[in-house]
Amino acid sequence: MSTGKTSSGLAGIIAGKTKISTVGKESRGLTYRGYPLEVLAEQASFEEVAYLLLYGQLPTYNQLTQYRRQLQSLRGLPKELKLVLEALPRESHPMDVIRTGCSALGCLEPETDITPQQDIANRLIALFPSMLLYWYQFHHQGVRIETRTAEDSIAGHFLQLLHNTPPDEISRRVLDISLTLYAEHEFAASTFTARVVTSTASDFYSAVTAAIGALRGSLHGGANEAAMVLIDRFSNPDDAENEIMAMLVEKEKIMGFGHRIYKESDPRNAVIKRWCQQLADKIGDNRLFPIAERIEMVMRREKNLFPNLDFYMAPAYRFLGIPIELYTPVFVCARIAGWAAHIMEQRSDSKLIRPMAEYIGPENRDFVPIEQR
Amino acid sequence: MSTGKTSSGLAGIIAGKTKISTVGKESRGLTYRGYPLEVLAEQASFEEVAYLLLYGQLPTYNQLTQYRRQLQSLRGLPKELKLVLEALPRESHPMDVIRTGCSALGCLEPETDITPQQDIANRLIALFPSMLLYWYQFHHQGVRIETRTAEDSIAGHFLQLLHNTPPDEISRRVLDISLTLYAEHEFAASTFTARVVTSTASDFYSAVTAAIGALRGSLHGGANEAAMVLIDRFSNPDDAENEIMAMLVEKEKIMGFGHRIYKESDPRNAVIKRWCQQLADKIGDNRLFPIAERIEMVMRREKNLFPNLDFYMAPAYRFLGIPIELYTPVFVCARIAGWAAHIMEQRSDSKLIRPMAEYIGPENRDFVPIEQR
Ligand SMILES: CC(C)(COP(=O)(O)OP(=O)(O)OC[C@H]1O[C@@H](n2cnc3c(N)ncnc32)[C@H](O)[C@@H]1OP(=O)(O)O)[C@@H](O)C(=O)NCCC(=O)NCCS
Ligand SMILES: CC(C)(COP(=O)(O)OP(=O)(O)OC[C@H]1O[C@@H](n2cnc3c(N)ncnc32)[C@H](O)[C@@H]1OP(=O)(O)O)[C@@H](O)C(=O)NCCC(=O)NCCS
Repeated sequence: MSTGKTSSGLAGIIAGKTKISTVGKESRGLTYRGYPLEVLAEQASFEEVAYLLLYGQLPTYNQLTQYRRQLQSLRGLPKELKLVLEALPRESHPMDVIRTGCSALGCLEPETDITPQQDIANRLIALFPSMLLYWYQFHHQGVRIETRTAEDSIAGHFLQLLHNTPPDEISRRVLDISLTLYAEHEFAASTFTARVVTSTASDFYSAVTAAIGALRGSLHGGANEAAMVLIDRFSNPDDAENEIMAMLVEKEKIMGFGHRIYKESDPRNAVIKRWCQQLADKIGDNRLFPIAERIEMVMRREKNLFPNLDFYMAPAYRFLGIPIELYTPVFVCARIAGWAAHIMEQRSDSKLIRPMAEYIGPENRDFVPIEQR
Repeated sequence: MSTGKTSSGLAGIIAGKTKISTVGKESRGLTYRGYPLEVLAEQASFEEVAYLLLYGQLPTYNQLTQYRRQLQSLRGLPKELKLVLEALPRESHPMDVIRTGCSALGCLEPETDITPQQDIANRLIALFPSMLLYWYQFHHQGVRIETRTAEDSIAGHFLQLLHNTPPDEISRRVLDISLTLYAEHEFAASTFTARVVTSTASDFYSAVTAAIGALRGSLHGGANEAAMVLIDRFSNPDDAENEIMAMLVEKEKIMGFGHRIYKESDPRNAVIKRWCQQLADKIGDNRLFPIAERIEMVMRREKNLFPNLDFYMAPAYRFLGIPIELYTPVFVCARIAGWAAHIMEQRSDSKLIRPMAEYIGPENRDFVPIEQR
């Protein structure tokens, strides 16, 4: 035990051990269970990656088929959950809705001592897209959608529920890759939140609900929505350059840039940028992608800062026809795989996470009874 | 920034600064905003303490009157929240219900850029007892209770809603004191959770919802329920002594004993133990209190461990007629004051809390395409 080390934001503090992933470790980069992220993104499906994160090994062909079937069978919403989702207003932020839906599921299908924890993980992986889009379509289309689809991938299922038509191959592929990129990132703030909650011996749903709340913030997952709002403000690259320069003078933060651990670049960015460009070409976009590239150039030149995963994810999701306010919830649909792996890992440790504070408040004060104040 | 410090459970790591309270600091003990806890518990009401935590100063007589009125006016439940609560099963753990209710309120009354954050804090302080007991009575008495009462204290309000009759003076007083004892405790796991969530620039409700999830765990707030279940198992002190001895041989943890920061004793224990004894005398209990005292004696003798706040809180709540499964939710009704103060304090810092991990997983592995596995 080390005593009295202060660190702002716990930067550089090792808060525990993990076998799940490496972030920015020399000669390793970003790996999930030992596999380089870039390879997984291009060669494995998200379901393979989720399986890898949860069970520690890549599935065989038969295991994967079986796993896809299992997830598919878990996409139905309990009727009480539908009531809860219908009671939440159309104007709610969907992150608040998915946080509430997850918490409510913890009431409806609570964890017991004999519940296999992987079952809860898989239920959440299968159910988040259903939950989200049931609520979304109820309020936007005025329909109670059937949340079981024939799509055997989560990416396909999500796009099918959103657009009410089977997605094309490249859309399904890009969303699938984005899920893999989002699936896991070591002790990111939301994952760390899940681990702190788990360390008190609380239940699975409490940990995931808490993690969703952390992901919502604009310094974390919320950055993808904020990046889109930013890019969308500009009509052309010159316009963007001028405005970004002005924002930097004002010391404003540019969402989608920088990272606590990465100092040179975010390895996930190269992957998503390439696919974002392909989508832009396919769709014939000549506004958003060039604006994004100009902002990247300006940020490198002025601040030596690089785009993180969230920056090009934003226009990519726009090209997929996903509404802005669903960007961070899509991140939830992916990161649940990483959170689940960390919750299970934290449980095998069982040490309460409880730091201490440096006190900078008033000296001891004498109490004055209320009549004399 | 210090690099590479590992600490199991962040023990001894200073994770930030606070002006709110001191825990176990030499020559200070436990203080809220500079006032010794023991004095506040005996001489101030919980509403005074909540005001102190939120606004930094004890209220004057007029301020307190005004504050009580404000809280009283905030006790009504939105109709959508009632729908949500009614949809959650009777068998749910009330901690899951209050977590869900808090999250749902974040959809119904979301925080906006211009919402004064104290208003959300006060709404939650006022609403948690209503939320909890609306759900509880709906499922246990089959009635939709009116959640506005004439009681001007939270303690009185809670007991009135629970028992459907105005509480006697000593019950109101002891519950009030217990709320003060539970109100704040520096970087306890739930508070730290709220601060991590807040550090991502997420909203108030996300932080509180996450904190509830952390408090639920039996190594944290859940210990009061676990302690009651333990004490309740025994018919007399000798029986308890034998059983505790056997549990210690099995290396089982005895709930309600020990603490991460305190090493000699928990200063809150002396206060609650005294009041617990008074209630026992009033009610004529000659089973639970003697059993609890015997367990305390055995734990001191065998392990040199002391009861923490949760241990005597358990029989005290039993004497107040509170059902076991509501003990940790009552803790929520109190600790919301401390969480709120910490959320506001964390916001004035704005540094993302994001530690790192020590990697102990597999070396880099070569990806094998699925057909070849
Ligand atoms: C991710 C992030 C929180 C990491 O932050 P951190 O490790 O705590 O570092 P800081 O925020 O203290 O930043 C260090 C310096 O770089 C600057 N900086 C970092 N990110 C910046 C950004 N996106 N825009 C402008 N300046 C930035 C800070 O202003 C600070 O400058 P200073 O030293 O002159 O004060 C931060 O880069 C950020 O806020 N990025 C934008 C949000 C985002 O995209 N989040 C998603 C991450 S995947
Ligand atoms: C509160 C608590 C989590 C603090 O834990 P910590 O600082 O992480 O310390 P540890 O759990 O590692 O305990 C240190 C040692 O004391 C023992 N110990 C601590 N609390 C104990 C308890 N309640 N019963 C039996 N043994 C206990 C541990 O077994 C350990 O012994 P070891 O060194 O032989 O392995 C711990 O005391 C505990 O679990 N208490 C019971 C739950 C509880 O009452 N929580 C409410 C706190 S207000």
